Amino acid sequence: MAFIQTDTFTLRGYECDAFGRMNISALMNLMQESANRNAIEYGIGIADLAARGFGWMLMRFRLRMHEYPRYGQTIQLLTYPTEVEKYFIYREFQVLAEDGTLLADATSTWLVFSMEKRAMVSLPDFIRSLSLPADIPQTTVTPLAKLSSRPIFQATDFDPTQTKNIEVGWLSIDQNQHVNNVAYVEWLIEAVDSEILQTRKLAEIDLVYRAESHWRDQLQIQSVAETPTAFLHRIIYPETGKDVLQARSIWEDN
Amino acid sequence: MAFIQTDTFTLRGYECDAFGRMNISALMNLMQESANRNAIEYGIGIADLAARGFGWMLMRFRLRMHEYPRYGQTIQLLTYPTEVEKYFIYREFQVLAEDGTLLADATSTWLVFSMEKRAMVSLPDFIRSLSLPADIPQTTVTPLAKLSSRPIFQATDFDPTQTKNIEVGWLSIDQNQHVNNVAYVEWLIEAVDSEILQTRKLAEIDLVYRAESHWRDQLQIQSVAETPTAFLHRIIYPETGKDVLQARSIWEDN
Repeated sequence: MAFIQTDTFTLRGYECDAFGRMNISALMNLMQESANRNAIEYGIGIADLAARGFGWMLMRFRLRMHEYPRYGQTIQLLTYPTEVEKYFIYREFQVLAEDGTLLADATSTWLVFSMEKRAMVSLPDFIRSLSLPADIPQTTVTPLAKLSSRPIFQATDFDPTQTKNIEVGWLSIDQNQHVNNVAYVEWLIEAVDSEILQTRKLAEIDLVYRAESHWRDQLQIQSVAETPTAFLHRIIYPETGKDVLQARSIWEDN
Repeated sequence: MAFIQTDTFTLRGYECDAFGRMNISALMNLMQESANRNAIEYGIGIADLAARGFGWMLMRFRLRMHEYPRYGQTIQLLTYPTEVEKYFIYREFQVLAEDGTLLADATSTWLVFSMEKRAMVSLPDFIRSLSLPADIPQTTVTPLAKLSSRPIFQATDFDPTQTKNIEVGWLSIDQNQHVNNVAYVEWLIEAVDSEILQTRKLAEIDLVYRAESHWRDQLQIQSVAETPTAFLHRIIYPETGKDVLQARSIWEDN
């Protein structure tokens, strides 16, 4: 069985921002929901892995916004695995308007950890033997390249000009008992300059998930401008300096 | 035209908490979404009012959770206006499982403000003349009473034992350019004791919306235990002491 997961969503009011544009966090939540549904259909859902002592972990995620969906708009969300390696499985996303216009696309890298060892393991056979969809819907934009496990921005000097301390709240915790992947992106966005938020929109975000975090953890959100329209972000444990997330965002005019 | 708005929603992963139970904020977001859709059908949506120089304001909201919906569950959300007075319009909500079990119910009071006067006005004729649904679906629980505009807990002595200062973030702002009604409830929940969050669940919340707040406003979330399982909450502007929200919550064992 190999197929393209296709879900249709109509944007709700609370999924949109002050400009009536879809929130990045709402879109990423829907992407994750579709990915979950697709994984369940493939027999590799969270419950399937848990029954065998494994868990999914998101390692990389890169999202490009081409045109923001708006309140009331109906979007089609497509997702499918594209490649399986020894340690990583790759998944792509396309967000289409009703006329087929590509609104956003994303690509992601996932790994599997052993609950017993609390460490990454090579992908179990039932995942490695997955049959992948043969025909990926083509789009009008250059496809996203396969994500590097060590993107260039990871090595860029990072001397934050803005820092903000937060405590992980109850509503950021998911059924895996750790912070859900999208909460980090909300924190990054909230730490962006007011003027950027008011005059620009996120065009692209590239994320490297380094470690999980938990309820009541104290985290520090850091950022620095790389160019006037690009920012580097880190989320760390301020006590140890340990990285939780590294990211780069690009913002374009409204 | 008078009818019961009926929407069907299937719970997504990110709408659920660490226990796999639906988040109160996710449920309130869906209730508000259904209310919006119902208002649009009645010709009294946000845009209909805006075109005439008016806006909606939520004044009171009371929610009772009878049984928490869970991840993957399909719920039916019913909402309808129940009464129109000179200044207030009342709206009720029922949340049903697929077998008809009542999972939650809520009631709310709304008023209309004039954009020009920035003040409450008597309901315009096109709202006062609304034809209300004649047959409200009966439930197995005692219906919620009509909400008082001044609930008893408003007058209770309030000497907070816990306070938390927050800054209103970008993602809490809606298309009306002010904090969305549900964000306040998220802040109240986040300010509740860890032990309560881990061992209990919200059974009821009663809210009095006093003033709107905006992006980057500094607010203080206050709470005090009224009994071991009931809390009083206030959200104020700490600089002036002005109330934004008053609330009472009741928590029951998991």
